[in-house]
Amino acid sequence: MRKIAVGQAGGPTAVFNASLVGLMESLYEDATLFTVTNGYQGLVQDDMEQVDGALYEWVRRHRRVPGACLGSGRYPFTPERMARAVANLQKRDIHTLVLIGGNGTMAGLQRMSEIARSMNYELQVVGIPKTVDNDLAGTDHAPGFASAARYAAMSVRDIAKDLEAMRNFEQVRIIETMGRNAGWLALASGYLKASELDGPHFIYLPEVKVSREQFLTNVRDCVRELGMATVVVSEGFAFSGSNVVMRGVVHNRAVLGGIAAEMGRLVRDELGLIARWENMGMNQRSCCAAVSAQDRLEAYEVGKKAAEYVRDGRSGVMVSIQRTEAIGYNYELIDKPVEEVAQAGERLLPHDFIENRTKFYSWLEPIIGEDMVKYPPMRRVKQA
Amino acid sequence: MRKIAVGQAGGPTAVFNASLVGLMESLYEDATLFTVTNGYQGLVQDDMEQVDGALYEWVRRHRRVPGACLGSGRYPFTPERMARAVANLQKRDIHTLVLIGGNGTMAGLQRMSEIARSMNYELQVVGIPKTVDNDLAGTDHAPGFASAARYAAMSVRDIAKDLEAMRNFEQVRIIETMGRNAGWLALASGYLKASELDGPHFIYLPEVKVSREQFLTNVRDCVRELGMATVVVSEGFAFSGSNVVMRGVVHNRAVLGGIAAEMGRLVRDELGLIARWENMGMNQRSCCAAVSAQDRLEAYEVGKKAAEYVRDGRSGVMVSIQRTEAIGYNYELIDKPVEEVAQAGERLLPHDFIENRTKFYSWLEPIIGEDMVKYPPMRRVKQA
Repeated sequence: MRKIAVGQAGGPTAVFNASLVGLMESLYEDATLFTVTNGYQGLVQDDMEQVDGALYEWVRRHRRVPGACLGSGRYPFTPERMARAVANLQKRDIHTLVLIGGNGTMAGLQRMSEIARSMNYELQVVGIPKTVDNDLAGTDHAPGFASAARYAAMSVRDIAKDLEAMRNFEQVRIIETMGRNAGWLALASGYLKASELDGPHFIYLPEVKVSREQFLTNVRDCVRELGMATVVVSEGFAFSGSNVVMRGVVHNRAVLGGIAAEMGRLVRDELGLIARWENMGMNQRSCCAAVSAQDRLEAYEVGKKAAEYVRDGRSGVMVSIQRTEAIGYNYELIDKPVEEVAQAGERLLPHDFIENRTKFYSWLEPIIGEDMVKYPPMRRVKQA
Repeated sequence: MRKIAVGQAGGPTAVFNASLVGLMESLYEDATLFTVTNGYQGLVQDDMEQVDGALYEWVRRHRRVPGACLGSGRYPFTPERMARAVANLQKRDIHTLVLIGGNGTMAGLQRMSEIARSMNYELQVVGIPKTVDNDLAGTDHAPGFASAARYAAMSVRDIAKDLEAMRNFEQVRIIETMGRNAGWLALASGYLKASELDGPHFIYLPEVKVSREQFLTNVRDCVRELGMATVVVSEGFAFSGSNVVMRGVVHNRAVLGGIAAEMGRLVRDELGLIARWENMGMNQRSCCAAVSAQDRLEAYEVGKKAAEYVRDGRSGVMVSIQRTEAIGYNYELIDKPVEEVAQAGERLLPHDFIENRTKFYSWLEPIIGEDMVKYPPMRRVKQA
């Protein structure tokens, strides 16, 4: 039987495991499967496990569980380590590697494929898309994003409504979302705004620089008019003339975070208002109560589709979701070369989504879920 | 027709408005209602509005909306201001005041009642219980808590599962919940733990002091064994020999916050581990996706019950939820003197709930909701 290794790489999502289950359910009967522990690390350290009935059933139980049940994580994947990874696969006679991941993972698959070729080892590589912040190229969107967007939209709707009631105690809330270079999640947070009076009143994106002065003017005017301001900011936003704010560096990877705190302190010190800042945190990528049913379905389907590519012997491809021209929401799953995906780099918000939010929210509607409730708009403007 | 003023006071919850709707639906036909804007502040500044059909329908639309649709907030309620509030009610010939709130609100109602008596003004006062952190005395629990507990339990379950997948990148997560003096919410966060291996691995409560050394030993040993540690801490927890950590003081009220950051820095500096800390934030009191259906029902019911007290002319009482001795979850709504509630002060976790979590979680089960899923336990211990 064909031997296939499957792994998960990068930050988890709420539907990461659904893709794994989709893949494994399609392949289990026809192949000998190996799970890779902790993504690249398991490949390099030969930490794999042959899937038996018990492990198979255990994985299947994770279809609705967030995280990455095989272990994922971040691990510096140097060319030397890639060569070791290929050698480890060779030792076990595994000729197929399927990884679920984002930009970095597709680039990694491409390079592993090249290294295997240079080692004269036949290695089929297939990628399954996964993202939280929708910065993966070569696909209309990737599983994980819509659930995170749903969480952001619901949270900000609720937090803004809470602030409305607290205007005599605090006036400004600043909420920081994920999004290093792409503001998809931050922009999605405005999806449930029922009227111009409702929060979020301002959204700041990595794609658009704004000066400190402009930000402060925005907040001051909004508080003057409504008695409050709810602000959403991507972790990757920076003020004009400034760099992004970082929390630290782990494994040579900048961990962003802190722009909301910087903005909150500015509001407090320059405008004399009471501001609260919070990070939307790990919940945005893992909250099960906010999962989009469509997102979970698509996550499962891209996993199944990858199994088809494996059986058909296609290599160097990622499953891509493409909307069709049909009326309503219709999509097909097609293969995209991982090389093309890797070369395209991070996918930023298109200009017309930034300029025309209605257009963006129409695009978002079918994937974020249909049972999204807008609240009654504020009845009147009542300053505290 | 009898004139009745209704208001909301203190921090909002996800079911605050359900109580308001329960009350108003019961009273609208028989009385002239006035809404009080922004809690005490509206009483003192005579910011009230007579309820007409449009306002009534607008309020009714908030049955499932978090926050406080009348405006709530915090406002220093001095004896002088209380006297002004009574005078304002007198001016409008309003002889009944119903407030939805927590400890402070029940004490405020009691004092307003005394001041009205000293002014020879007949004022009926009725309290409807509301809380996020369950520190309200005189009731088995109060609406708002179970939904917040549900949010805490689901979030921590999900965030811990996410950390499991990221052990080669970060090892420790510290999540800060609300709870100034009472650890109900923090303790509830462990409700969905499926096995000893799952997070949260440690919960720190305001009721129990722990030394820095003990905390660090706990985390170090857990990371050694499992490769990770998920820690939950109440904002009101303090290390032995230390005071609580504050973010600042607003209107003479200490705004707690920051203990998770202090703990995270300790872990980083003393143990050399990668730690992430987050505040569970405003979502724990406002997240609609995590509302407990039972909590929302009870919130509505205590509002209805208060209307009954109003009609029966009972004054100086709060609606209290009391479990009965019957098998299963049964409760009755009885009246408790607001004086007694106010004098009892903040309700801390009982000793036997702290010592015996199974007992606490059995108590919690019927109110947190029945569709709470535990995830499959970790299959094996695999260090990154």
